[in-house]
Amino acid sequence: MFLKNREDTINNILDIDLKSNTENIKDFIRGYVAKLKKDGAVVGLSGGLDSAVVLKLCSEAIGNENVLAVILPERDSDSKNIKDAIRLARELKIKYMNKKITLILSLIGIYRMYPPSFLFKKSIVEKYITRKRKSISESLGKDLYISNLTGSSNKELCRGLAYCRIKNRVRSALLFYYAELNNYLLVGCANKSEWMIGYFIKYGDGIADIMPVISFYKTQIFAMADYLKLPDYIVNKAPSPDILPGIIDEDMIGISYRKLDIILYGLEKKYSVSKIARISGATYDEIKRVIEIIDKSGYLRKWPVMF
Amino acid sequence: MFLKNREDTINNILDIDLKSNTENIKDFIRGYVAKLKKDGAVVGLSGGLDSAVVLKLCSEAIGNENVLAVILPERDSDSKNIKDAIRLARELKIKYMNKKITLILSLIGIYRMYPPSFLFKKSIVEKYITRKRKSISESLGKDLYISNLTGSSNKELCRGLAYCRIKNRVRSALLFYYAELNNYLLVGCANKSEWMIGYFIKYGDGIADIMPVISFYKTQIFAMADYLKLPDYIVNKAPSPDILPGIIDEDMIGISYRKLDIILYGLEKKYSVSKIARISGATYDEIKRVIEIIDKSGYLRKWPVMF
Repeated sequence: MFLKNREDTINNILDIDLKSNTENIKDFIRGYVAKLKKDGAVVGLSGGLDSAVVLKLCSEAIGNENVLAVILPERDSDSKNIKDAIRLARELKIKYMNKKITLILSLIGIYRMYPPSFLFKKSIVEKYITRKRKSISESLGKDLYISNLTGSSNKELCRGLAYCRIKNRVRSALLFYYAELNNYLLVGCANKSEWMIGYFIKYGDGIADIMPVISFYKTQIFAMADYLKLPDYIVNKAPSPDILPGIIDEDMIGISYRKLDIILYGLEKKYSVSKIARISGATYDEIKRVIEIIDKSGYLRKWPVMF
Repeated sequence: MFLKNREDTINNILDIDLKSNTENIKDFIRGYVAKLKKDGAVVGLSGGLDSAVVLKLCSEAIGNENVLAVILPERDSDSKNIKDAIRLARELKIKYMNKKITLILSLIGIYRMYPPSFLFKKSIVEKYITRKRKSISESLGKDLYISNLTGSSNKELCRGLAYCRIKNRVRSALLFYYAELNNYLLVGCANKSEWMIGYFIKYGDGIADIMPVISFYKTQIFAMADYLKLPDYIVNKAPSPDILPGIIDEDMIGISYRKLDIILYGLEKKYSVSKIARISGATYDEIKRVIEIIDKSGYLRKWPVMF
């Protein structure tokens, strides 16, 4: 689904000049490393698209020898993603660390909440998670994604969110640690699509010293990945937070990236709803939902709310 | 030193209406809990002044039964602070958790860097740390506090910073975890003095859902503590990050809070340097140094720098 309509989007409204944009990003990374007197850059590598694009950009900006890729898998991580991450770091000749954080998360006590995927067939765990999500959604009687944006007294939902979010927060604490030990800059991988709809963990993957691709929609990150000649094993998989088995981005968000990005673009350009519907192929309800999501996720994009 | 001149400051230029200000803060906390549909508030309790003030304000705002105090000591924590934190939570009838994070930090591998204080007399460890700071400072040949604000190729300094910062980042990950498990709001304790000079850990104690006392200088937090009738064992100790034995705030920052706050106030009001010198008793060099610190710490107060 996420790939089907890529061609007409890329050759279309979300087209960007890939050469000049990637050069600008590289200048930005280089400039910031110099400004903060850092000796290199750390990128947290997940095996997914965004971190691969950022890793490649860092490597081209400041030299592969000054980049450290940090891979931080845990019990529920997809083993294919770990392998892909390691393979990419090796192919790009970038030094990497692969440190499991399962024990740390165990000490915090999170794994009591969900069955370990290594004890069961992947398909069984995925079914279990899907059923759980469905039952929470039904008991709430509303859009699960929107419910996730604010608090909820539903205990199951709270546990699920806490379970997922601590993983990325422990990761970012470790990424900063390795960055600081080496006097490196922590370079984050958030993109504009996920940023605008709050599809990131506040103070988890939503933090870093700099966020070099945050002005670009996911569709544009795909185009960058092609332009940067990232390998198929990175590009050709459904985007997923890899935080719970069986969860992929477009299922969670409830809309395809293609539609979402054009809606976000249209809203940014202040197009009329009918024009947005025409160019994105989205229904009025889908557009209304995105507007609600942007609104309700606003506090996630703000530095701690001040008094 | 931090207490000596309190009286003339409190009755002076930094005076605030304590009744209306604390009422406004409580309204703010209550409003945010409601807005984000939370069932209560979490406060990370250190045994120090700021978190005690915030805890008391939360308790008065939403009721002590809806507040959870989380105490997260580690190997190097001052045992007096832990005792004071527990005592305060008990006296205020606020439920609390006391979870040691030493094992988590051990797994990350940080403790190999410094000698454990429980094996030595406190005074010996403090001497060791002080000597280390002095030797780093001498080899850098410049102001250690200002050097801490950007990167440095000094390996000793990098290790020291990484060692301290990971502690607060693991703490904030855990605070969010307990907040989310309970559908509580994480309420942070940063104040204006430390915020303006970058005396906080970016994405460590510098993050939370809301920061209700961030518009107030440390001098004003002291006044609030008196007004809120916080006990002597909390108020009468030298402010310290309690992150390395022997480190107290005013030594680290290199200026007393009293002077600092009046300088910050004067700069905010755009007073002339000579006026600031007159009202604060600071030298021109001290004022120049604070201006440099504000400038160099600017990036710490920004949400991840965007492209």
